Amino acid sequence: MSKGIVSRSDNYSQWYNDIVKKAGLADHSAVRGCMVIKPHGFAIWENMKVQLDRMFKETGHVNAYFPLFIPKSFLSKEAEHVEGFAKECAVVTHHRLMNDPAGNGVVVDPSAKLEEELIVRPTSETIIWNTYKDWIQSYRDLPILVNQWANVVRWEMRTRPFLRTAEFLWQEGHTAHATKEEAIEEAEKMHEVYTRFAEDYMAMPVIKGVKSEHERFAGALETYTIEALMQDKKALQAGTSHFLGQNFARAFNVTFLNENNQDELVWATSWGVSTRLVGALIMTHSDDQGLVIPPKLAPIHVAIVPIPKPAAEIDEVALKIKAQLEGKGFSVVYDTDLKKRPGFKFAEHELKGVPVRLAIGKRDLENRQVEVARRDSQEKKQIPLDGVVTYVAELMDEIQNNLFKRALKFRADNTHTVHSWDVFKETIETKGGFVKAHWDGTTETELRIKDETKATIRCVPLDDDTESGLCVYTGRPSERKVIFAKAY
Amino acid sequence: MSKGIVSRSDNYSQWYNDIVKKAGLADHSAVRGCMVIKPHGFAIWENMKVQLDRMFKETGHVNAYFPLFIPKSFLSKEAEHVEGFAKECAVVTHHRLMNDPAGNGVVVDPSAKLEEELIVRPTSETIIWNTYKDWIQSYRDLPILVNQWANVVRWEMRTRPFLRTAEFLWQEGHTAHATKEEAIEEAEKMHEVYTRFAEDYMAMPVIKGVKSEHERFAGALETYTIEALMQDKKALQAGTSHFLGQNFARAFNVTFLNENNQDELVWATSWGVSTRLVGALIMTHSDDQGLVIPPKLAPIHVAIVPIPKPAAEIDEVALKIKAQLEGKGFSVVYDTDLKKRPGFKFAEHELKGVPVRLAIGKRDLENRQVEVARRDSQEKKQIPLDGVVTYVAELMDEIQNNLFKRALKFRADNTHTVHSWDVFKETIETKGGFVKAHWDGTTETELRIKDETKATIRCVPLDDDTESGLCVYTGRPSERKVIFAKAY
Repeated sequence: MSKGIVSRSDNYSQWYNDIVKKAGLADHSAVRGCMVIKPHGFAIWENMKVQLDRMFKETGHVNAYFPLFIPKSFLSKEAEHVEGFAKECAVVTHHRLMNDPAGNGVVVDPSAKLEEELIVRPTSETIIWNTYKDWIQSYRDLPILVNQWANVVRWEMRTRPFLRTAEFLWQEGHTAHATKEEAIEEAEKMHEVYTRFAEDYMAMPVIKGVKSEHERFAGALETYTIEALMQDKKALQAGTSHFLGQNFARAFNVTFLNENNQDELVWATSWGVSTRLVGALIMTHSDDQGLVIPPKLAPIHVAIVPIPKPAAEIDEVALKIKAQLEGKGFSVVYDTDLKKRPGFKFAEHELKGVPVRLAIGKRDLENRQVEVARRDSQEKKQIPLDGVVTYVAELMDEIQNNLFKRALKFRADNTHTVHSWDVFKETIETKGGFVKAHWDGTTETELRIKDETKATIRCVPLDDDTESGLCVYTGRPSERKVIFAKAY
Repeated sequence: MSKGIVSRSDNYSQWYNDIVKKAGLADHSAVRGCMVIKPHGFAIWENMKVQLDRMFKETGHVNAYFPLFIPKSFLSKEAEHVEGFAKECAVVTHHRLMNDPAGNGVVVDPSAKLEEELIVRPTSETIIWNTYKDWIQSYRDLPILVNQWANVVRWEMRTRPFLRTAEFLWQEGHTAHATKEEAIEEAEKMHEVYTRFAEDYMAMPVIKGVKSEHERFAGALETYTIEALMQDKKALQAGTSHFLGQNFARAFNVTFLNENNQDELVWATSWGVSTRLVGALIMTHSDDQGLVIPPKLAPIHVAIVPIPKPAAEIDEVALKIKAQLEGKGFSVVYDTDLKKRPGFKFAEHELKGVPVRLAIGKRDLENRQVEVARRDSQEKKQIPLDGVVTYVAELMDEIQNNLFKRALKFRADNTHTVHSWDVFKETIETKGGFVKAHWDGTTETELRIKDETKATIRCVPLDDDTESGLCVYTGRPSERKVIFAKAY
């Protein structure tokens, strides 16, 4: 089976597109910038959703659903928000089509023009805070801990499947609180939930930090972010959690009576991750053979291939192993397709990222053993038949851990601390990766560095490295090093 | 606690709106015809989704996701479909806003007009069949068994929460097959899945049937439907499954090479249920005290109320019962709110439709018993403490069955077989309910009956009653009786 995947070293960008296409994750659609998420890609997103939704509920959140459309005027209510979000978006102006009087299909009915245009939500702060106004009267109505799973649209000019599409799927949490402290605690809690999800489920190490003022969400006082490093040494923002202060409450006049019977503005957070995570997953683990999926998110954990084809004695053993693995919560396929040869099947399961493959032939059965191949390292081993179920179950943890460790090592190998502007420029240009450097804290310097190197401040990390120093660009005092990188 | 719910007999329509509002199911939004689904309403929909999704996967389907937008020209490709769907819909004409030069917020940027308008999907047959064209080359690519969970928009003039809204949530299955027989089998299989879901989970009896030609889905050769009877004796179409023949394959030129290497058009089905089911659930079981939810779909199964308030010895017993019930898969709240009195809590849990309430006071504990109240019949019983967990677990089945039986009896009591036009008219006008009558099979007669009585043919039932007779309106021959009713 020729997989038709360009190697990462030859053309990383093409490699990514090849994986998306050949592993059956997504397709381009007839609508500019919108993708079709194919069953295998959607199954990965579904597995992400299940875990995230559980984590949200465990931290006290409930789901709800708000309208797809936002009245145009809502977007202007929060001054910074409109700058950030009201520009490139889908605008609904009419509510009816009619048969073309000239006989050419259908045309927009000019008499069905909306009084006020509607925007397809690029994010839902405005429509939600307009709703919260009705939900919140007193401190007894707080906190509100709501999440929404939804589609959103941002009219991006340059799109790539999963990484940047005009329509994408995401979740957006929107919470309302009586105090500033509680809202900050919430934003930080969800930052931590995203970190745990990225590291424990996606096996993708992330740097926790806050955004610079310039990179903050439009309308936020603080944006917490998790930043991951892709195999081409570019950074990817994987999730953000925003402390919004009282900005949206002020814009939509949402107040509550506190315990002393005084009116106060409500405090807010919002936080979200999207189908972009599927892109991040691909670019963190996959290789030139295809997709690599950590077991905790894999739609299929084990593929069993009969060698060279199904036979009564092989079927019996395979189906028994399948049932036992399923009993342990794994998803297993026994690939009995007669039209495909074993080598083709091996390549196909490899391409689709199935973590473990078992091959069972008659000779194996005579020796009472099974060939176990792991996707991450592509190692193969003969394992005694009696112990294979336990072995595979343990191997899943081993693979999950190995993927994380491998990605962590890659990140460590590609994180550079620099102290001079020349080395900064050279590192960004020739090595890539995360570059830790001192920065004087001004947007002006940040923009100049971006202008000269295309590197942006990914975050001010929340780690222990709080040593002060001198800005790598201006030489002015810096409180701590920040993380620069070229980014998706 | 004054619930503020009008009684069904006084004003059924207001009663429905009161339940939706007071039980916290949905709110109107700032966007005409779009609702906000509140957490309690969304939790019911989530429980429906979990069961339906499981049933779809058990019957071999996988999920995928297709674009929100459909190019306008796609809608004209299938002649009947455009008549049915291309009219009242949200039309995107521009992709950018800009700051108003006059300084009044934002306005549509006239330079950002789309070359071709995009329609927010009212249903996805067209965009999906345009995609399937790329997915299907040979018989080996068939069948395709895909489902999508999505939001859709139909610009309805008169809307009601859940029952008819401009935007609603649904699932739409879209399958592709090599033969007519297989496609019909699929459409019938999903019809049966919907029937099982309605009856076994929603405890809502439905009549299985097919639509008359006039009532068929735009583009279908056969529409299978399940029809339920609401408490105001109006019918509600709860789910449909369509055999689409080769209409969409023809419109989008989707062919496959069969085993004899000949090109053939692909056969199609589509099938869907929506958040309308939440409205159906409310109107099937609820009463003047509030919502009634069958246990299999209840977000909370049991509310435990300490009498008159929490105390160490009550807490200990309540938390033990809670843990044991949770161990059996039930969702339990122990309502320790100090700001509310027991009577208020009782009314609140009743309003929200919690199937079972336990009340535990100190005297109960001395007598080693607990008061168990069931929501469906509002009966209360003292149950020995030692057996209460088993009792409650069994009571859930009992309530589920009782709700179904009660609804079945209501339907039987309100199904009338009539043989003359006078009785038909009088029955529709004074009694309502399902009216079984002979019909001559013509659209002309169907429309005249609708014109004179507002009753429509809900379905040609797939039951055993195939006795022929004479049309109740024209006296012409009729092959079998069909079901008429006024409908939502």
